[in-house]
Amino acid sequence: MRQMRPLRRSLPLCLLLAACAQQPVATTPAAKPLTSAEVLAASAPADWRAPDPENTLYLELKSGRVVLELAPAFAPNHAANIKALVREKYFDGLVILRSQDNYVVQWGDPQEDESKQKPIRTARKALGPEFARAIGPDLPFTRLADGDVYAPEVGHAAGFPAARDPASGQAWLAHCYGALGVARGNTADSGSGTGLYVVIGHSPRHLDRNITLAGRVIQGMELLSALPRGTGPLGFYEKPAHHVPIKAVRVAADVPAKDRSELEVLRTDTPTWSAFVDARRNRREEWFLDPVGHIELCNVPIPVRAAAKP
Amino acid sequence: MRQMRPLRRSLPLCLLLAACAQQPVATTPAAKPLTSAEVLAASAPADWRAPDPENTLYLELKSGRVVLELAPAFAPNHAANIKALVREKYFDGLVILRSQDNYVVQWGDPQEDESKQKPIRTARKALGPEFARAIGPDLPFTRLADGDVYAPEVGHAAGFPAARDPASGQAWLAHCYGALGVARGNTADSGSGTGLYVVIGHSPRHLDRNITLAGRVIQGMELLSALPRGTGPLGFYEKPAHHVPIKAVRVAADVPAKDRSELEVLRTDTPTWSAFVDARRNRREEWFLDPVGHIELCNVPIPVRAAAKP
Repeated sequence: MRQMRPLRRSLPLCLLLAACAQQPVATTPAAKPLTSAEVLAASAPADWRAPDPENTLYLELKSGRVVLELAPAFAPNHAANIKALVREKYFDGLVILRSQDNYVVQWGDPQEDESKQKPIRTARKALGPEFARAIGPDLPFTRLADGDVYAPEVGHAAGFPAARDPASGQAWLAHCYGALGVARGNTADSGSGTGLYVVIGHSPRHLDRNITLAGRVIQGMELLSALPRGTGPLGFYEKPAHHVPIKAVRVAADVPAKDRSELEVLRTDTPTWSAFVDARRNRREEWFLDPVGHIELCNVPIPVRAAAKP
Repeated sequence: MRQMRPLRRSLPLCLLLAACAQQPVATTPAAKPLTSAEVLAASAPADWRAPDPENTLYLELKSGRVVLELAPAFAPNHAANIKALVREKYFDGLVILRSQDNYVVQWGDPQEDESKQKPIRTARKALGPEFARAIGPDLPFTRLADGDVYAPEVGHAAGFPAARDPASGQAWLAHCYGALGVARGNTADSGSGTGLYVVIGHSPRHLDRNITLAGRVIQGMELLSALPRGTGPLGFYEKPAHHVPIKAVRVAADVPAKDRSELEVLRTDTPTWSAFVDARRNRREEWFLDPVGHIELCNVPIPVRAAAKP
């Protein structure tokens, strides 16, 4: 079949960065604009950051570990309370109880509404909302020039996809794929962190400023996104046998160093970051016949890699 | 726990339309603007259309049936060739060979690159690209007023999410969640329909106009989106044992009436559609504390329901 390229080249796109990085890479500064894989290959150690173990969570499932980074810069009270819940082992033995296609997975106490609900021992049982925070010099913002349907400004802050409104002076985390949020009832203060969700579909940006986001998944998304969808309303699992048990949730700082997932995340406030975003905006890979020229906030991947051994 | 609403009300959002429709519904015209569930409940039969069985495909997996609607208004040659492949039973016994997280699943012949590849008997082995088509009176377009990062105009045409550029006179299908595309190699004419993919993550709109879209999934997305992710580069399954067998693909028109999935899709060119989109843009459900006021193309769900029995 002459007209057909080998199957592994007939793919829509090289998105897995590890795979992209296998492409030939320029080792000296080149006049030619770089692809995103070339930008990463040319990055310096200082272009990467190690997430703070004190703000990193491990969600331990039978299928493996999901690594989440909390965002105290945006939701300090919720980040603190989630850690308090983790440290009193609130989540251990609870379950993932919902997987709604193109929307979210959610975990918590399946008996939360009943008399047998799991007690909260040390964490706060109620928190005020942290839907947004003030723009300020303590929150540097790398703006994305491409515009956005939902917010006056979008970009990255503290390593997270975020949005801002200069008119209101507010900044907030964006509901991109992998975002970690705090389930709530109908009132703003009805979420405490006992129920948490992660976005597994097209980014539901209409939730922005309607609910508190507290972080994002940085490794292991596929352990959540590929779970069977629940067949009940809103994707709830209809039978306890469908629930996905949570072995444990831990703060990385509490885990022995040898058992940690040592990761590095590309910084979002460097010239390398800007070059990376530009290379995702203007696609230079051979496969792209149209270089695109635009990029939407939630289509900017934030590269994560295994940390170099010390 | 007074502050916690019952769990089923502590959800981020009522997205499953079937669930939304369980809400109380106004039975007489109300001055109060409607929620999207209320718009659907008040819809007339003429607000819905039955997909043409001649342009509807059933992808039969062990787990169930995925229903796809082809888009001959945008990709007539590819729709015809995919049907030719289906009718010569090209896909029967082939496999889903790739599931890449936050990106696509892809099916086809795992031996396409080898001498044992499955022969094409009646379909065309090569097609020119159908990345875009001419804007014209034969393609009515219901524009979305909210803007877009990737295209000058977005909206819906022929029932599909689409985009337009008046300057170039082109219209094209958008890579929203569930979009069905035709894998290709590095040249524009290297896809014929033997390899097909479906978007299972945040909408990769940068693929628009880079590859031919030929339709979308209208039922059964969860049978694709919840498949285990492949562990090879680009989400390919590394071992044949991981492949997901395709029992058969059929054109609905070729299936006995009693075995068809009789569905109706909300028309995208009616006042009801406009009211529905407006109700998704301006959220009036009690849960929403901020009514949002914007909606992005790929966040507009296109409701599908079982057809009424004749």
